[in-house]
Amino acid sequence: MCVPAPGPQEVRIQVKAIGLNRADTMYRLGIYDEYPIFPARLGYEAAGIVEAIGDGVEGVAVGDVVSVLPAFSLHQYATYGALIVVPAYTLQKHPSSLSFEEAASVWTSYLTMYGMVVDAANVQPGQYVVITAASSNAGLAAIQVVNGVGGIPIAVTTTGRKRDALVTAGAAHVIAADEQDVVTEVLKITKNNGPEVILDPVGGPLLTKLIDAVAVKGKVYIYGGLSPEPASLSALTLVRKTPALYGYNATDVLLNPSKLGAAIQFIYEGIAKGKLKPVVGKTFPFDEIVAATKFLEANTHIGKVVVTI
Amino acid sequence: MCVPAPGPQEVRIQVKAIGLNRADTMYRLGIYDEYPIFPARLGYEAAGIVEAIGDGVEGVAVGDVVSVLPAFSLHQYATYGALIVVPAYTLQKHPSSLSFEEAASVWTSYLTMYGMVVDAANVQPGQYVVITAASSNAGLAAIQVVNGVGGIPIAVTTTGRKRDALVTAGAAHVIAADEQDVVTEVLKITKNNGPEVILDPVGGPLLTKLIDAVAVKGKVYIYGGLSPEPASLSALTLVRKTPALYGYNATDVLLNPSKLGAAIQFIYEGIAKGKLKPVVGKTFPFDEIVAATKFLEANTHIGKVVVTI
Repeated sequence: MCVPAPGPQEVRIQVKAIGLNRADTMYRLGIYDEYPIFPARLGYEAAGIVEAIGDGVEGVAVGDVVSVLPAFSLHQYATYGALIVVPAYTLQKHPSSLSFEEAASVWTSYLTMYGMVVDAANVQPGQYVVITAASSNAGLAAIQVVNGVGGIPIAVTTTGRKRDALVTAGAAHVIAADEQDVVTEVLKITKNNGPEVILDPVGGPLLTKLIDAVAVKGKVYIYGGLSPEPASLSALTLVRKTPALYGYNATDVLLNPSKLGAAIQFIYEGIAKGKLKPVVGKTFPFDEIVAATKFLEANTHIGKVVVTI
Repeated sequence: MCVPAPGPQEVRIQVKAIGLNRADTMYRLGIYDEYPIFPARLGYEAAGIVEAIGDGVEGVAVGDVVSVLPAFSLHQYATYGALIVVPAYTLQKHPSSLSFEEAASVWTSYLTMYGMVVDAANVQPGQYVVITAASSNAGLAAIQVVNGVGGIPIAVTTTGRKRDALVTAGAAHVIAADEQDVVTEVLKITKNNGPEVILDPVGGPLLTKLIDAVAVKGKVYIYGGLSPEPASLSALTLVRKTPALYGYNATDVLLNPSKLGAAIQFIYEGIAKGKLKPVVGKTFPFDEIVAATKFLEANTHIGKVVVTI
């Protein structure tokens, strides 16, 4: 098997850690924005060492320690591999305080959360932000970003099993959706006003309930569809409370150079100050990447699933 | 029965025409933002002649021909009556080109449509705007406002029966939802891009279809809930196309003095230029207001239902 040399504006990386994402699974299942064209590859995130450089690449040298922004089409590039070729513009020299595993866990989650919490919703100090699937890597990143701007993160998880871990991760409140009535709990915590912002990668009946609970003129960001069921949308509720519901994905930041620049600065500063810290939930060796994927899809973990090489 | 004298900052109006609104019905049914407190009254719109003036009212004289902005709570004021007391700040001296019936049909619809089309969505020339319940007074106002800013109105109605009337009213395209596949037709008209904006007072299964058809980053305004069914919301569709869905009502304009001022100016200019012209669908005498209400609720008409005195 041949690993191609990097072409113009490309680099080849010796991969040390691969961050697994829900998007990988969705792409594989054919429910993502892009559909696989075979032979197809997978993976948006990785960290490693620059091993070869193509023509016209500037500011990057062989031996540089880098991580990869998920700013490419899986039809052209992918990160599941020991040696990968990626466009030079995706490279970030991550801080030396981060391990390879942590560096492979930074970009998808923090860029998405920066985009929703800081750029789009512009969460203000004291505002309540409900975060569903809170123990996922994205959810933990949301808790950190919301705390970073002075918001009050309300973590929603399925059972009470992860309650302590979520409090440790920074959640001001934790709701176990399978054991408590989410609307009642959210209204209690928010003194009946409802949360100003909701960040939801689940959809389905939980989203239906959350829309019922959102504050007047609240903002609901839907950035994933973990539930196989649709949410149910009452037009009259919307007319009464005039919330805004946004479908969201990280391309909003990735395809906008000024937003991306601000996001990267925010993330580096947050890491430097210790406000943002990637949570690596479990690592698997490269030859167990199938097990790693199944583990991710089982939704029992806390934090990022990473494959190391 | 005693009609009270106008209090401070109030005026009494000899009503000539009452505009009926869907909101009246919703309030009566207990499904509106406010719930009736008995004895309860009804009505947000009217036009007539100032008949008495309370203390402190300036710029209004007995004999002035006025119409009423729907900027009050039904717990305090209402317009179903031969003599009504309303706050002076709600009065507008409508242009003499308008009949009383037309003047009683202006504000709710045009303020709502200005708010969505001009202020919120900022529709640009050449953008496609889908308008459901297109033959309602609000729908016809939407067609006029969209044409007024250079947009392309796509009218959605139930059957082909109102097609010609909608084309006459300014619709660039008409889709009969009971006879045609709405998604197919919308995509055909918009060259597969989908409409940039959707204005929907229906909700339910039609809204589900429209969200499927909306353009990438499109805007969906939901300003009513005519359908008794909920819409079904696919989170994955939202994540892929990243549209924004807004619950909307006219308080967005009515409670914001600068927006309201801009809206009134836009509406007066539109009326003066002939771009905006209220469509009075059917008038009823005052003692047939029950029949007028039933007629409104039957949804078979085109334009505004007005009661005259």
